[in-house]
Amino acid sequence: MQCYKLTLATDGTHYNGWQIQSNAPSVQQHLQEALTTFLGGEYAPLIGSGRTDAGVHALNQIAHFKTERSVDLNRLKLAFNGLLPRDIRVNKVEIASPQFHSRYSAIGKEYHYYLNLERVMDPFRRLYSWHLLRKLDIPLLHEAASLFIGTHDFTSFANEQHRGSVARNPVRTIYRLDIVPSENELCLKFEGNGFLYKMVRNIVGTLVDVASMKLSLADVVSIFEAKDRKRASKAAPAHGLFLVRVDYPVDHLLI
Amino acid sequence: MQCYKLTLATDGTHYNGWQIQSNAPSVQQHLQEALTTFLGGEYAPLIGSGRTDAGVHALNQIAHFKTERSVDLNRLKLAFNGLLPRDIRVNKVEIASPQFHSRYSAIGKEYHYYLNLERVMDPFRRLYSWHLLRKLDIPLLHEAASLFIGTHDFTSFANEQHRGSVARNPVRTIYRLDIVPSENELCLKFEGNGFLYKMVRNIVGTLVDVASMKLSLADVVSIFEAKDRKRASKAAPAHGLFLVRVDYPVDHLLI
Repeated sequence: MQCYKLTLATDGTHYNGWQIQSNAPSVQQHLQEALTTFLGGEYAPLIGSGRTDAGVHALNQIAHFKTERSVDLNRLKLAFNGLLPRDIRVNKVEIASPQFHSRYSAIGKEYHYYLNLERVMDPFRRLYSWHLLRKLDIPLLHEAASLFIGTHDFTSFANEQHRGSVARNPVRTIYRLDIVPSENELCLKFEGNGFLYKMVRNIVGTLVDVASMKLSLADVVSIFEAKDRKRASKAAPAHGLFLVRVDYPVDHLLI
Repeated sequence: MQCYKLTLATDGTHYNGWQIQSNAPSVQQHLQEALTTFLGGEYAPLIGSGRTDAGVHALNQIAHFKTERSVDLNRLKLAFNGLLPRDIRVNKVEIASPQFHSRYSAIGKEYHYYLNLERVMDPFRRLYSWHLLRKLDIPLLHEAASLFIGTHDFTSFANEQHRGSVARNPVRTIYRLDIVPSENELCLKFEGNGFLYKMVRNIVGTLVDVASMKLSLADVVSIFEAKDRKRASKAAPAHGLFLVRVDYPVDHLLI
């Protein structure tokens, strides 16, 4: 059995997220159909590193599948990009070790979230950043961000993925949360060992509420302590979020 | 009668060009409807600096309208951006001199055209640049571009706007045609005193054919001499083209 690792870029605007659903187009479904065509009808389940929500984008999403066949890596890449819609592109196909799993082998992830601060929004950024009409206090934003760095119980910042489903372990570590300004935007860069469902968007919503004086820094501390999702702010919209990188152990590739 | 000048940004992806048509959404139609709403039903014809094609984008398109009323500039801008779809934004409203006409007063324009040279196209650039799978000879591209700079009869590079309609004067001057590389793209920057219908896209199509050895530099010279649109290359696709700036005489604003 050979395990193949795919690296993908996806403009999530037109997709109802990653996961195959009965009623709406998904990224996984397009990839699975292209793969099944390439394998001449063989069904090799294609599994992604995580379920991105509707509208979320990815610069380097990771997926894998296993098959008995030996596959020419370059031919498979060309076939994917020939068969897939133009808003999903496969940038790399590699051979991973047989135990590799895009989701369970992941040891870290990086997400970026874009906040647009222009008075009139640039129409070319409308699908890729959250246009905020509120004024933000930037030093306060930095102070609030520092409260999220480190190892915490993030229960208050995690949604249930299905009704009643709660992550077994809500403790995660955020290694970095940098705020990088560009001309008219702020990019919030999250690096951590893993993120709970909607955790980045819930944190961004809360950070923006602090920076616009709707919440205080003390409120953030008490939201953490409450371990109750209802206490944190509304999630920031999906279209500002990019999955930028998924990290695996250095020896995860076979060659 | 007061004349108002509008500066607009438009993501052209979802529009069938600038001009009002009976069967498809246009930028002009959305603006006209918003203006008529703002003016409480008064119809003040809104006129643009030129008719961009379906799929062409604009960073600073110019339009104007005239009315007897005195209009609060900031309120009008806010009303436009409240009423318009999010892919059309009004960035400026100014008072122009009474003789100002967005089309006939224009003395120059700048267009940018993006060529994407990546092996696998970045999905986030798919609507904003032309993905070329051909290899380009960059020094040859520069040489070919130099043939277009200056004052020429551009008949061979102009389409008829309507069946049988030919511009009265096909002579135009291109002041600059710069080729600016970025990471995986080339930006072709055109500045001139005016451009005939589809002229930029026809020139880009021809430049790409020279740089990919389908045409020679001598062919370009003979295409100019033939004064026949059928001789030049196929137009480059609309979605790589941006109207960047329209120039007017320095005294065209009233204040």
